[in-house]
Formats: sequence, structure tokens, C-alpha cells
Amino acid sequence: MDEKEDLLRGENRTDLALEAGERLQNENAVPKGLRVETLHAGQAGAEVTRAYVESREAARRMGKPMGVYITIEAPDLAGEDKGYHREVSGLLSRQIRELLPKRRDREELLVVGLGNHAVTADALGPRTIDHLAVNRHLLSLFGEGVKEDGFTVLCAIEPGVMAKTGIETAEVVASITARLKPDAVLVLDSLAAGSVNRLYRTIQISNTGIAPGSGVGNHRNAINQETLGVPVIAVGIPMVVDAATIVRDAFRGAGRRGGEELNRGDFALQKFQNMYVTTKEIDEMTERLSFTLSEAINMLAG
Amino acid sequence: MDEKEDLLRGENRTDLALEAGERLQNENAVPKGLRVETLHAGQAGAEVTRAYVESREAARRMGKPMGVYITIEAPDLAGEDKGYHREVSGLLSRQIRELLPKRRDREELLVVGLGNHAVTADALGPRTIDHLAVNRHLLSLFGEGVKEDGFTVLCAIEPGVMAKTGIETAEVVASITARLKPDAVLVLDSLAAGSVNRLYRTIQISNTGIAPGSGVGNHRNAINQETLGVPVIAVGIPMVVDAATIVRDAFRGAGRRGGEELNRGDFALQKFQNMYVTTKEIDEMTERLSFTLSEAINMLAG
Amino acid sequence: MDEKEDLLRGENRTDLALEAGERLQNENAVPKGLRVETLHAGQAGAEVTRAYVESREAARRMGKPMGVYITIEAPDLAGEDKGYHREVSGLLSRQIRELLPKRRDREELLVVGLGNHAVTADALGPRTIDHLAVNRHLLSLFGEGVKEDGFTVLCAIEPGVMAKTGIETAEVVASITARLKPDAVLVLDSLAAGSVNRLYRTIQISNTGIAPGSGVGNHRNAINQETLGVPVIAVGIPMVVDAATIVRDAFRGAGRRGGEELNRGDFALQKFQNMYVTTKEIDEMTERLSFTLSEAINMLAG
Amino acid sequence: MDEKEDLLRGENRTDLALEAGERLQNENAVPKGLRVETLHAGQAGAEVTRAYVESREAARRMGKPMGVYITIEAPDLAGEDKGYHREVSGLLSRQIRELLPKRRDREELLVVGLGNHAVTADALGPRTIDHLAVNRHLLSLFGEGVKEDGFTVLCAIEPGVMAKTGIETAEVVASITARLKPDAVLVLDSLAAGSVNRLYRTIQISNTGIAPGSGVGNHRNAINQETLGVPVIAVGIPMVVDAATIVRDAFRGAGRRGGEELNRGDFALQKFQNMYVTTKEIDEMTERLSFTLSEAINMLAG
Repeated sequence: MDEKEDLLRGENRTDLALEAGERLQNENAVPKGLRVETLHAGQAGAEVTRAYVESREAARRMGKPMGVYITIEAPDLAGEDKGYHREVSGLLSRQIRELLPKRRDREELLVVGLGNHAVTADALGPRTIDHLAVNRHLLSLFGEGVKEDGFTVLCAIEPGVMAKTGIETAEVVASITARLKPDAVLVLDSLAAGSVNRLYRTIQISNTGIAPGSGVGNHRNAINQETLGVPVIAVGIPMVVDAATIVRDAFRGAGRRGGEELNRGDFALQKFQNMYVTTKEIDEMTERLSFTLSEAINMLAG
Repeated sequence: MDEKEDLLRGENRTDLALEAGERLQNENAVPKGLRVETLHAGQAGAEVTRAYVESREAARRMGKPMGVYITIEAPDLAGEDKGYHREVSGLLSRQIRELLPKRRDREELLVVGLGNHAVTADALGPRTIDHLAVNRHLLSLFGEGVKEDGFTVLCAIEPGVMAKTGIETAEVVASITARLKPDAVLVLDSLAAGSVNRLYRTIQISNTGIAPGSGVGNHRNAINQETLGVPVIAVGIPMVVDAATIVRDAFRGAGRRGGEELNRGDFALQKFQNMYVTTKEIDEMTERLSFTLSEAINMLAG
Repeated sequence: MDEKEDLLRGENRTDLALEAGERLQNENAVPKGLRVETLHAGQAGAEVTRAYVESREAARRMGKPMGVYITIEAPDLAGEDKGYHREVSGLLSRQIRELLPKRRDREELLVVGLGNHAVTADALGPRTIDHLAVNRHLLSLFGEGVKEDGFTVLCAIEPGVMAKTGIETAEVVASITARLKPDAVLVLDSLAAGSVNRLYRTIQISNTGIAPGSGVGNHRNAINQETLGVPVIAVGIPMVVDAATIVRDAFRGAGRRGGEELNRGDFALQKFQNMYVTTKEIDEMTERLSFTLSEAINMLAG
Repeated sequence: MDEKEDLLRGENRTDLALEAGERLQNENAVPKGLRVETLHAGQAGAEVTRAYVESREAARRMGKPMGVYITIEAPDLAGEDKGYHREVSGLLSRQIRELLPKRRDREELLVVGLGNHAVTADALGPRTIDHLAVNRHLLSLFGEGVKEDGFTVLCAIEPGVMAKTGIETAEVVASITARLKPDAVLVLDSLAAGSVNRLYRTIQISNTGIAPGSGVGNHRNAINQETLGVPVIAVGIPMVVDAATIVRDAFRGAGRRGGEELNRGDFALQKFQNMYVTTKEIDEMTERLSFTLSEAINMLAG
């Protein structure tokens, strides 16, 4: 696609299917095969939205793979009220459970914390792993009784980032999945939102896995059921906004002519590739939200 | 000042006097009392610029306190060549030395690492402290011989950030300075540049200290000779760009009409307050540059 | 004191007054001026002991300054039950409150996290600070209403360690206390126990402050009411055992002749100076207990 | 083996083959199949020892698998002289090269940083990974020219620790090795020395890999050529001493009768399992030595 055209159409990069769907609605261009349900959760003042992307056309228009995308919008999630966070953890745990394969007598989940532990805005996945109550290594202690009840085995890895390992993250995850053969893989990641207002307040759960770099199609580097051979549930929270996004938003705010100027001018949005926007309280947000995610996953097992 | 007017005039926030001076030059509006010298350092392919802000009018127009601002532009500073970084450390050390008070038989320097150790983009100051070869606590071992030669005593603190301590950083620094009575204070900080191109490649050394939140005037929270009672040398490297800055740059790139739209529209740059832009390699940059700064300071002492 | 004699008498270094008192009891040598009360807390299965060291003789024999030492022994404190930790936080908060000066309309507490953030076994103090809900910087928001109720102002510092700063920790604390003039200082520290069994399960609260290097007497480096001019409450949890201690324990376990051999031989316990023993789960213990301490302190304010 | 007998014989746990060999020499019990060569390196004042363990009997007596163990004893390695550390990196790099398979036109090395990033005394492996110049992900940029010269491809992983992941470390390493098929695996680890004097000053390189928990035999959890299918070079530096070791040393220092008492008494060395001794400067040591290791590995790649 022509970059100029892209700028004119003003499609912000967003990892949130909810935002992609809203854009199509605003354009009166909701495709066949995109179905959205909204419900009030009754907890944490949260709104839960489910977007079903059920056709190739819908996937192309959304810029997201076909599948189910659940979004929890929890207005006070950026705050520090622990009771509130516990409520959200419970709500999140139930939403993840609905996307997991039906539990056999015993299920085994591999949790993957994507991102860079050393970069605060990218550390949500790894820090969540730090707080998990993994138990796979204790299995021999539980003995045979384990088979009788519904029992969830948890294990976890931090694959690191390619710049530090020299290895595609997807390769690390695929090789460990191939060996451990879990019933499902849970992939945790920091997301990019298309709007500053979604930061720290929104959780997306999907059964489509992660396709780095693009939404549609099969990629060598995707982490999904096709590449891993088991169901992959992705859970993420927007922690950053792309630098290019806030520039586009500004032009949009400035009216039509501003946008035209943007495309006519020599200004290159590409120069913002690899740059992102975040806020000064990012360390507290990462710390707090990594607990909320880890609690939700621990509840799956407990 | 009216915010609209500010947007129209397009003054980006920058911590770099060099950028503030360039803006005035571009506007053919260099005030009396601003004098700039440029020299090629002969090392590291670096250019060294000295800006002397010598009148109140120049300070007001620059948005910076009166004083001397030395800028080292080292084109390969973002790279990993250790020999190059050593050259820059040597060059930086000599520039700091020129702003320090003439060394007595013995001098004592207090180094202050500003910023938040837990936020990668704000950790340059604290991480530099981690690498310093402090020696003040060893003084009793050196004994009387110390007095005869030029000898530099180093000590250092990380005052932390107000959100974590509840205390103004300037209060922490002032109280320790009052007790230790050093000959000078070196304040290290992550800076915000007015342009993405300056990130990680520019070092600013000034004798004006740090005036959080604004450039001109005396503030309760300033860390400078007036508030501390001893010379204060500030050393910083731009690690981020304000979110508002990249938006303004985009409008500027889009031409005059884009800028007018920005001001006419309801788009509020204020919403980007507290947000900053950085790049994905910020952890490596902080690690690398904190070593370069620490080496320069260690050379002062040795 | 002669080192040989010291070895023979087998006095382990311990930061816990409780252990020092037990040793004297075991030797039937409880001095006048040492009074011990024990009570079952009714919470968390914890036992609370108060030792009153009320004479110089008692202080000398205990190896601790005169004052009150409260010890909470909470058997499950090393575990991960969050409800249990909340109970202990509540109990601890009330014990700290009893040692604080009677609250005026408004009180201001300065919390000091001693230790090295970068050494896991020494990081309890700094990590507790990370979790505190400081509010001193928000005071202007609360306005005048603050004066009417009992209101606690919290602020905090991490003074760092002398090897990194070149400054005596006591100097850093004294200079900030002199400026902020809090009603009391709370000093948090990792302690050394005299026995492996006390690790992670015991909390000591005292009104004697901290006297690094030795228990009795006035030291330049002490952090106490005498040096700071305001009440100093020290709170600590044993995270390590001195290397020399476990060697002595072994000899004691081996019987009298083992101990005699120790003193006769050329084996030097001094070589273990600066060495300590800890366990492989130290990172989880530090993380968990820093939350428990921070909750207790946050309860003081709220 | 009977634990009492073990205590009596006073066999300290050590990860260093050099120490195991010295013990046998002191007992005049050097077995057939153990051959030791010592040479002065001519650099860094270092002594290089090679122990060839060439028979099952020798392996049993050493408590180490059959193979080659190279030890570099560098007296000033705990110091901060960067030139000295560069010399040791060069020496280490050449010793590793000698144990690697002969380089084909192109070789690929997988580096594994064992240990817990969050526990300072166990973080040597992971922190070395942080400093590596990995290049495998850049291969497509190098293109075909790569095949003509000797070219080393580096990639790296931090498998984490079982308590955090729930997965045996050996499983993580095996699964990634199976996928990447490197020419060799380099395993980096913190070691336990049998004596305080060896801490931070000794580097061991061996071609036997790592067999957690025991020296001889094939274990499910071993990381070696047998389990991975490619040569495994282990590189380690002693950062801790087992708690039980310093107790035994004390008894040994106290003479024969002390040792007898130890065995006769009810004192259980087992209680020190899972406990280790380290020093207060462990953070600086880990930081410094992780650079020295990473430089040596980066030199392998050119």
C-alpha cells in the first residue's frame, strides 16, 4: 500500500481489535463477517466487548486475523485500589477460561512473557511471569491423584527479545512448545493502542495468537495455533502509543486540510518507525498491571 | 503566554541550548548577549559548540538561564565502538574541567544522578552513579599526603524521584550539599531534545544547573549555584523527545496551513503533557551512555 | 575483647535483641535492667515479645543500646499466603504506632530504606520504599483541612550504600532529617540473625535506631535520636546469617571439645568477616517481605 | 554414600575440578587417568591448568565427568583494572576456542546464561548474556559472503530458573538446541568453590557440560554432548561457597578431634543445604566479571 494513501486514510496502528472495529463503524464500513457484542460485566464497572472476526474480508479490513477478540475496559485499572484489581483479575480469568480448550482431567498451560525485561514500557509480559505460581516442576509431588480432578499445570518462559538473543521469539516459543506439548499456550504482551485514552485501562484477550509486524496472513514469526500446533490465547494491555499515531491524531484534530497538508508535505511519518510514546508513570503501571495479569492466570490454576 | 500563540510559534520544548539558539538563528532573531562559538574537537569526529548567554534578554529568548552551555555533538555516540566512547569520555572530561572552579590542592565533587532508576528512559543519571569510582569514604586511608597534590574527592547520590520519595529532588540535593560542602556539584540528567536526530548523540554541559519545569528565573526547585551555594555543573544527554514536539514537527513539515489548522482546531497539545517519545533500543543506549559519562567523571578524579 | 575468648564464649553476632536475651537466659545470666514480656498476638499465630533494656549493664550484656525491642515471630511469614501477610502488616503497624511519639494533629514520618538495591539479600529496605504510598509532595493539594484531623505525612529516601556513594549513610540521613524536620524517622533494614531458623520469620521493631558495627555506645555513624534529634524507630527482618555464626553453631553442635579445638587451632573466624549466608529463594523472600513492610507503613498513614 | 562418612572425609562440594584434583594430591591418591598440566600464561600473571580426566575411576574419584577442565587463575580478576580484564578476556577466549570443534567455514554458537537474574550471586550467566554481541538475527544482512570466511554466528538464551518457570533448565536448553542445531553450545554459570580464596579469581572451562546435582553419571537434567547432541563447553566463575563447606573448613582448621566431634555430634550439615555464602561486594563482582566473560565470547566471533 502506498504510504501517502495510508497517511491520508489515517489508519493508526493499533493492537486492539476494538479500536479497529470502531474505526470501521465510524466509516460506516462494517464488513460482513464482523460481529460485535457488548455487555456490562457487573464487576469493576467494566465493559466487556467480544468481536468475532469470521470472514477473510473482515480480517483484511480489520487488519487482524480471524478469531475472537475479547476486550475488557476497566475504567479504574490505572489506579491503585487493590480490591478493584482483584475484581478485574477474576473477570479476566473467566474470559481467558472461555477461550481455552475444555479442561480435561488435567490441563497443562505454557505461559509466555513476551517483551524486554529491561525496557519498562515493554516489560509487562516478563514481569507477569515473575509473579506466577508455576507448578509443573512440583508435579511429581502431587502424584497420581492429580488425574482425578480438574487440575491445571502451569509453566512459563521469558523468551527474551531478538536484539538480545539473536533468535526470533517465535522460534524459542515453538521449540519449547514442541517439547512440552502443553494443552494451550498463553502469550502475554505489551500492546500499542491507537489512542492515549486506552493506555493502562484495557485488556484484550484473543484466540488468534500474535503475528508480529502485521495482522493478516501467515508469517514465519507468528505465534499462533497454526505455527505451534496448540491453541494460543494472547493477553495484552496497551502500554504505549506509536509515535506516528499521535501525529496522525493531531492532524485529524486539526481538520481535513491539516491532513491534506500532511500528505502533500515532505514530512515522513516513517521516521517515527521504532519510536513510541509512553508516560512518566510507566514503571508503576507495569508493576501494578503485571500483578493483575498474574493473579488472573494463577486463578486459572487454583 | 497564550497556549494558542505558543502552538502557532511552534516552540518545541528542548533542554538543549544549542537547539534554542538554532531556532533564533533560523528566525534571524539572535539577541544581543548570545554568543556562539563552534570548534571541531579533533577527537571522535565531534563538534564542540559553546553558547554564552550573557544578557537577560538573551536568556528570555533562549528560554534558558544565563551562563555557558557547551555542546558536544559526537556522530557515532549511539554506536558500540568502545574506543570511540573512550575518546568522547576524554573530551567530555576536559569540557567539564573547564567549567569547574580552579582546582585547589584538593577539591571535592558531589555527583548527583537525577531521574528514575526504574524507568529506562529516565535512568541515565542513576546508572552513571552506579559506575562511578567514588573515593570520599576512603579519605582516611589516603592520609595527609592528599593535601600536597591536586587531588579530587568524589562522592555521589541518587536522590530518587518525587513520586517515589514525596520530597522535592532539589531539597534532597540541597540538604546533602549543605552538610558535605563540596567545591562543586555535578548534576547528571536525561534530557529532552527538540528533534529525534539529536537523541543519544549530543552531550550538554552547562554551569547553570537545573531548573525543572522552566528555563528562566529562580525557582524553589532549581538546583543551581544560587540555591546550593556552590558551583553547579549540569551534564545531560537527550534520551527522549516530548510527545508534543513530534506533533509540532509534523505540522511544521506539513507547511504553514497545517500549523494554522492546528491552532484553529480543538486539538489540544496539552493532552500530551507528561508523555514522551523514545525508541526501542533505549535500554542499550542508557547502559552504554552511562558508562561514557561515568568514565568522563572518573577521569576528573584520576 | 580477646578474639579467642569470644570464640570460646560462642557469641554469635545477631541483630535480634530477642536472641541476645535468650542467650543470657540460657546462661542464667539475665542482668538487672532487662525485662521481657511475651504475649500471643491473637493474629497470624504470632508471638510478640517486648524486651526492655533499661540499664547500662543490661545494654552491655545484651550488646544492644538501651531501649525497647519488640519482636514479632510469625511462623508462616516466609510463605505466600497474602491474607496472612495482611494480618502481619496490621499487627506490625500497631506495634510501630506504639513506639511512635503521640500523634499531633498532623505528624510527618520520614522512612529510610537502608541497604543496597542491587544485592538481593540487602535490598529489603530499598524495595520497601518502592512500594510506599508517599504523600508529602501532595500536601499542597490537601490544603488546610489537614490540620484538623490526625493526618500522617509520609516521605521516604534510599540513601544508598557507602561503597557506591562515598558518603556515610548516617550523614545522608542526618542531612535530610535536618532539613525536613519530621516528627520521627523510620529506618528499615535487612538484619543478620544468629540462627538460620529465624530467617524471614521474625520482625524486630525498636526505638533505638541503628548503630552500624556495634550495639553499645554513641557512634559517629549511628542513626538514632541522639544523632538525628528526633525519635528513630528501626524495623528489620533477618535475611542473612553471618558466615562466622554458622561455623560457631557447628562447633557448638559438635560438643564442648569441638569448641575447644576451634579456639586452640589456627582457624581464624575473622576470615569470614564481610561474608554472609543466605538461601536460594532470597529474591522471593525480599519481594514478599518488602510488600508486608510497606503495607504496615502505609497503614500508619491511612 | 553414608552422610557421616562424607563428613568425616571432609569432601567439600566444589564445582572446580582444580580443587578436586588438589584434594586427591594432598591425600596422595591421584588415580590413573587423571593428568594435570600447569603453565604460566604469560598474560595477566595468570596460571592455566589443564586437568584431563580420562578414566572412569578418575571421574569417580574427582566427582566430575570425564573430559578436559581448563582453569585460569588470574590473581587480580576481582580488581577493577580494565586493561587487566581485557587481557584475561583474550586468554579466556583462546582457551574456549581450543575446546570448540574446529571451525568450519561458518560456525554457529548458542550461548546459554544459567542462573537467576534476580539473585545477585546467581546472576553471572544471565548478565553475561546481556552484554553479548549476538548476530544470528542479522545473518540475512551478511548474505552469501559469510560462507567464504571463517565466520562465527552468535545467539543466546536465558532459560531462567525452575522455581520461576516450572521447567527443568535442561529441557529448555535441549528444545532450543534441537531447533537451532548450533555447532556447539556454551553454557555460562556461577560456580561454588570449595574455598573462599578462589572466589572471583578463577575461571573454569570444560568440555563436559553441566550436570546439576552431581558430578558423575548421566542425568536427565544434564546439559552435555550426550543430552544435546552437540559439543557443550561450560564456562564458570566461583561466586559462592556452600555453607556446609565453610563449616567443614572450620573443623578441619580445628584439627582432627574437631572433625571427629562433628561426626559424633547430632549436628546436621544437611540443614545447610540450599544455603550459600557470599560477600558484600557480590554486585560489583557480578557486574565486572559478566563483562569479562562477554568480551571473551564476543572475541570468538571476531
